[in-house]
Amino acid sequence: MKKIVQCVPNFSEGRDLDKIDKIVNPFRGKDQVKLLDYSRDEDHNRLVVTLVGEPEALKEAVIEAMGVAIELIDMTQHQGQHPRMGAIDVVPFIPVKNVSMTEAIALAKEVAREAAEKYQLPIFLYEKAASSPERENLAKVRKGEFEGMAEKLMEPQWKPDFGPESPHPKAGVTAVGARMPLVAFNVNLSTDNLEIANRIAKNVRHLSGGLRYCKAIGIELKERGIVQVSMNMTDYTKTALYRAFELIRIEAKRYGVHVVGSEIIGLLPMEALIDTAVYYLGVEDFSMEQVLETRIME
Amino acid sequence: MKKIVQCVPNFSEGRDLDKIDKIVNPFRGKDQVKLLDYSRDEDHNRLVVTLVGEPEALKEAVIEAMGVAIELIDMTQHQGQHPRMGAIDVVPFIPVKNVSMTEAIALAKEVAREAAEKYQLPIFLYEKAASSPERENLAKVRKGEFEGMAEKLMEPQWKPDFGPESPHPKAGVTAVGARMPLVAFNVNLSTDNLEIANRIAKNVRHLSGGLRYCKAIGIELKERGIVQVSMNMTDYTKTALYRAFELIRIEAKRYGVHVVGSEIIGLLPMEALIDTAVYYLGVEDFSMEQVLETRIME
Repeated sequence: MKKIVQCVPNFSEGRDLDKIDKIVNPFRGKDQVKLLDYSRDEDHNRLVVTLVGEPEALKEAVIEAMGVAIELIDMTQHQGQHPRMGAIDVVPFIPVKNVSMTEAIALAKEVAREAAEKYQLPIFLYEKAASSPERENLAKVRKGEFEGMAEKLMEPQWKPDFGPESPHPKAGVTAVGARMPLVAFNVNLSTDNLEIANRIAKNVRHLSGGLRYCKAIGIELKERGIVQVSMNMTDYTKTALYRAFELIRIEAKRYGVHVVGSEIIGLLPMEALIDTAVYYLGVEDFSMEQVLETRIME
Repeated sequence: MKKIVQCVPNFSEGRDLDKIDKIVNPFRGKDQVKLLDYSRDEDHNRLVVTLVGEPEALKEAVIEAMGVAIELIDMTQHQGQHPRMGAIDVVPFIPVKNVSMTEAIALAKEVAREAAEKYQLPIFLYEKAASSPERENLAKVRKGEFEGMAEKLMEPQWKPDFGPESPHPKAGVTAVGARMPLVAFNVNLSTDNLEIANRIAKNVRHLSGGLRYCKAIGIELKERGIVQVSMNMTDYTKTALYRAFELIRIEAKRYGVHVVGSEIIGLLPMEALIDTAVYYLGVEDFSMEQVLETRIME
């Protein structure tokens, strides 16, 4: 694969294993598509699939799986904890190798246009692919959820980017977008005081004056009797992991607490950690071209 | 490529671009072999090629290139600063992905056996592939160099592992082996006192009581007016980069000097730096399977 895009489609089915298998099936045995992972959550009643592939092959496989989901999932019967507006709830494309964000956006738009037409499905573009600033934020796009979509789509400012102007009767509405890889990075503190984790989270996150590509909240790890600053690093190429980590360390000092460890949840690109190693070792003039795996994948 | 082995053959030709091109040519356009890099040094009169490939394809390409080198290089006319004993001086195989050291050793032995027979070339096995402890160290195997090989091979303890018992008239003798990836890692100090770099080097290197998989010497960087501890990390999976780095930092304190940066020369596997990042961030329960590139390459 010369160009690699990642795609993490979320489907509104987390319970019926037979249906899940059928939805995932279009991602198996394809030449230029690789199914990295899929995980379902019964409470959320949701399926998260992680794929990589060449843009064109990925597009076709994703559109195929969308068709299967539309056939199998009936949103009028769907219940689950996670907010959702459609059978195929969100389809983000993420540039990984030899692909620019511009290309990932173009791919998202193609998928949105073709799927909307093929399945008569209203589709919003979101995040970097959004057609206007108020559509960038997925939570805003999804607000009202499946049950509120018929009404929402009648508002002129919520006319879908592609497809009909009313929800698909059983499959609802889909959001297709492009974004940077997200790194779920949590830093543990030597205290059980959630207030401290929340204050530090406020200091490091973008929303309240912190780092540009960092979202953060405080969380209790009750079993371990500690708290954690739970972060989503939304662009590690601009806000490096070590920067958030060191800021948390500095802020923790104020409260007389220490960083006692961290967690990385799920997948992340090697560059996010290599940048961090290069910082701590003070490596001069390092290039990702010195990494064997970069060269092997070229 | 499901299994990946790296190979870094060194040929005794660093000046004649036409010959170099012909030697490298068998590594081009092959299906399961990838030419990552080749660099020549006029003073050393030596060519270092970096390849990766599936074991079988790599074996065939290497044997083919050895044949070209034997045809083109006349060691009776060779002069250069780098010690050398043959037209194909050394051929190390390095396990990279889904390949054990045992498999890399087996591959080295196959190449040695086939090439020795095909070209009537005496071959020593070295490092992990060595047939006895005194053949592990390449410097010992190569001692006497091309000019001394005829005499050396007559000694019973220096009977080659494969091939005839006298050197090839123009191509001399070759060493084929297996080893772990080598990371060239240099740490710069805030002083121009070479004695300090040498003392620290002594403290961190295996030879004089330091880390098991670390070779180190002190070096002057005259242009920058500083010194450096120049290291070869011979097995980063057992002696991590950060461990050598932190030890140097600690030792430097004794002399009132600081670490002012570092360098990584050439290629290294992503794992060597990811381990280091995981250490500094204190990541709990991290797995290389969380690295996107690991999954893509699987």
